[in-house]
Amino acid sequence: MAGSDKEIEDCTRLCLDCYRSCQQTASQHCLEAGGEHVEPGHFRLMLACAEICRSAAHTMLIGIEQHGRICAACAEICRACAESCAGLDGMAECEEACKRCAQACERMA
Amino acid sequence: MAGSDKEIEDCTRLCLDCYRSCQQTASQHCLEAGGEHVEPGHFRLMLACAEICRSAAHTMLIGIEQHGRICAACAEICRACAESCAGLDGMAECEEACKRCAQACERMA
Amino acid sequence: MAGSDKEIEDCTRLCLDCYRSCQQTASQHCLEAGGEHVEPGHFRLMLACAEICRSAAHTMLIGIEQHGRICAACAEICRACAESCAGLDGMAECEEACKRCAQACERMA
Amino acid sequence: MAGSDKEIEDCTRLCLDCYRSCQQTASQHCLEAGGEHVEPGHFRLMLACAEICRSAAHTMLIGIEQHGRICAACAEICRACAESCAGLDGMAECEEACKRCAQACERMA
Repeated sequence: MAGSDKEIEDCTRLCLDCYRSCQQTASQHCLEAGGEHVEPGHFRLMLACAEICRSAAHTMLIGIEQHGRICAACAEICRACAESCAGLDGMAECEEACKRCAQACERMA
Repeated sequence: MAGSDKEIEDCTRLCLDCYRSCQQTASQHCLEAGGEHVEPGHFRLMLACAEICRSAAHTMLIGIEQHGRICAACAEICRACAESCAGLDGMAECEEACKRCAQACERMA
Repeated sequence: MAGSDKEIEDCTRLCLDCYRSCQQTASQHCLEAGGEHVEPGHFRLMLACAEICRSAAHTMLIGIEQHGRICAACAEICRACAESCAGLDGMAECEEACKRCAQACERMA
Repeated sequence: MAGSDKEIEDCTRLCLDCYRSCQQTASQHCLEAGGEHVEPGHFRLMLACAEICRSAAHTMLIGIEQHGRICAACAEICRACAESCAGLDGMAECEEACKRCAQACERMA
């Protein structure tokens, strides 16, 4: 399995942090802000990033050898989401969570 | 985005079929059967396959360009799960669902 | 357990149909339409309805005695979502899926 | 909405803690231990508890008025899971997480 127990535990935590940040920011900040914040491409990335982070964490909690492939997909979507958040008001924390999660997932991949 | 609308719709349906089959077979057949059916490596693959199929379908329902990477991860885990089901009593339907899902996901990747 | 095997199977299917309809309609129709379709109260109900339908189906696939309580919560949110869809352009199919799911879940509760 | 912002945030965190504990303990401890730990009734409760905790947290991250009904269902399943964990080797932490989550969810209901 890719990654030591400690690395997997850290990655799981960062995935859940990113999931929480994307889901909450999309639902509670972006929907209230409107405009660019609900532009379809951006909002879909926020929802998809929340989902794949949640699922990557789930797979590491189960504990299978193939988690690296899911982490690779997760990292790619986190990078795209971070880019999509950059420059939008009130998204700095979410952007940071995406970058931290991407980094940890890239080490698993 | 990889795949036509029709291919994405079919792949989504096959992912949800595989999710349902893996989750139900693990919970309702494998746990009752015991023995090899609850061997950790096998049972974890069943749970992880259910999760990634569910998540791949979710990502296609949202509709992002990057779904191909998640489908690639899904296909790999479906292949491993199908192999793990082969030869175990009462798993033929689940094995078939995994193979059909893997094939559809490979076309998206 | 509340409901015969056949009723549970039907309810599971209707929950997954409603999940799919809410998630896809929110992401692919509401975000494109904008305006009232992305009004926070409405959009949150769409996302939450998708989630609880997905989770109610999951619980029935696992097979526990307590699924009736989750189905009751699911029915309540489906009813609220159907009401929120009523009168908005292009939401008739989603509204119908919510009503059918609510009815089936009420029989489980 | 039932509960102050602070209470909802705390409840969300306890739901995610319980989710993580149930999912990981089921997959990594119960499957290895075998015997009573993979008895169908027990193992299904572990999986269902993980799912409903995950879903209750998700609903609170989205932020809808009806989260109280999901929290009520979550509390009931957490109580049943805690009872099922009691007396089994190596389940004390999971049992505690279920009890803490149940308490927080009961305050939301």
